[in-house]
Amino acid sequence: MRPNLMNSALPHRICWVCTLARGPAAVSSSVAPERRRPDGTEPRALVDNLHMTAAKHIGIVLFPDVEELDAVGPWEVLATWTRSFPEDGYAVSCLSRSGGLVRCAKGLVLQAHHSFADAPDLDVLIYPGGQGTRPQLQDSEQLDWVRRRRADVPLMTSVCTGSLVYAAAGLLSHRPATTHWASLDRLTEIDATIAVRRDERFVDDGNIITAAGVSAGIDMALHLVARLSGPDRASEVRTYIQYDPAPPVDFRRSR
Amino acid sequence: MRPNLMNSALPHRICWVCTLARGPAAVSSSVAPERRRPDGTEPRALVDNLHMTAAKHIGIVLFPDVEELDAVGPWEVLATWTRSFPEDGYAVSCLSRSGGLVRCAKGLVLQAHHSFADAPDLDVLIYPGGQGTRPQLQDSEQLDWVRRRRADVPLMTSVCTGSLVYAAAGLLSHRPATTHWASLDRLTEIDATIAVRRDERFVDDGNIITAAGVSAGIDMALHLVARLSGPDRASEVRTYIQYDPAPPVDFRRSR
Repeated sequence: MRPNLMNSALPHRICWVCTLARGPAAVSSSVAPERRRPDGTEPRALVDNLHMTAAKHIGIVLFPDVEELDAVGPWEVLATWTRSFPEDGYAVSCLSRSGGLVRCAKGLVLQAHHSFADAPDLDVLIYPGGQGTRPQLQDSEQLDWVRRRRADVPLMTSVCTGSLVYAAAGLLSHRPATTHWASLDRLTEIDATIAVRRDERFVDDGNIITAAGVSAGIDMALHLVARLSGPDRASEVRTYIQYDPAPPVDFRRSR
Repeated sequence: MRPNLMNSALPHRICWVCTLARGPAAVSSSVAPERRRPDGTEPRALVDNLHMTAAKHIGIVLFPDVEELDAVGPWEVLATWTRSFPEDGYAVSCLSRSGGLVRCAKGLVLQAHHSFADAPDLDVLIYPGGQGTRPQLQDSEQLDWVRRRRADVPLMTSVCTGSLVYAAAGLLSHRPATTHWASLDRLTEIDATIAVRRDERFVDDGNIITAAGVSAGIDMALHLVARLSGPDRASEVRTYIQYDPAPPVDFRRSR
């Protein structure tokens, strides 16, 4: 899990964030537009290779049948933050067991930036949900990986049914947590000691944060920016992604 | 743009939605979980190959430096709808000029399901925004492609700065439209006849719908479901993705 990032023996091309950022799609201006702050100014400390030189890493786990927005909602929030404010020292990337392409629950295909083996050490892990979490509840290899991450990642977070995997790995015992509204009872079935929070958008319990279903990952990720870098940063990110929701139809909680 | 979908000469493997749905990641139950309705019941008319047999197609355009959530927000909404209710007769897929991998604005890599050449005829087009739209404003090949789609796609929609491309292609002349808050003036600069709506989440002007920035695509896509299949369907989708937002920090419109 810890390659030496300063070691030139690490083949740089393994990282799609970096390689693609330097590829033909890169823009010709001195500061790529996506590295500019939301207000259009240039960041103070421009780094050529943000992803591999950042001091702290946030990893979003991908797996077959991961729910698309569970992963990409937090990605949008965190990538906007880390690319606009590199001086905060964070970078975000996606990792999967073997790297490469991952088919999501609804048929979209995403590319993981890293495999578990070549991922940098993480300061924050984000575990999305989706139908793909269900087989993992009996997958001892995956659950062991989660337990090892609990031992070496300071802040573990989940979106939607990602918390079922944390529960199955024993991470949520005697702690408050939440999940997608349709899986709240499942959380209790897996571990009856969990204090299930049925009406919260996300539950911050110190070194573990669990979010409710799918789109709740956006709110949780904004909270993460506020916690790691302050509410002003999180407000700037919220404003950039114009997250001023106006759903045109009713929400119907079915329980 | 129109392959005969019933023609066996069309190599099925060109469609990642279909090929991957039947790959090793497919689940073994008779109805894949992601084909179940949000309430867990099975859809009435289960089709083995939803994507290629659906009567009507929604295409989301991908291009280098497309903003991630601009595309994946609507994808989540529309893929949840079309996979849960195949009897509504719609399918959604992503297309790009040459197909294959597309590097988004913040470094995430998505796989297009189709190239422009092998995409099915579309009933609805969704044009996301992002920094990648800027070079397109002077790209006559891309603008010609947009004008041809205006001629053969009944409903053209955009998210964020996707509407700048529509404006440059002449689609918005003398019509109301919106875009990301930071690009509202740009819309007027491109075409002074556009009635710019500065405070709307999305603007439905009949055969064209434009949405505000990034996350506004989620609201626009829910409106699209409501318009194409009724508000009950859209409410079910909203509930499934637990889109009951509770942003933890302030929104600061900077103008």
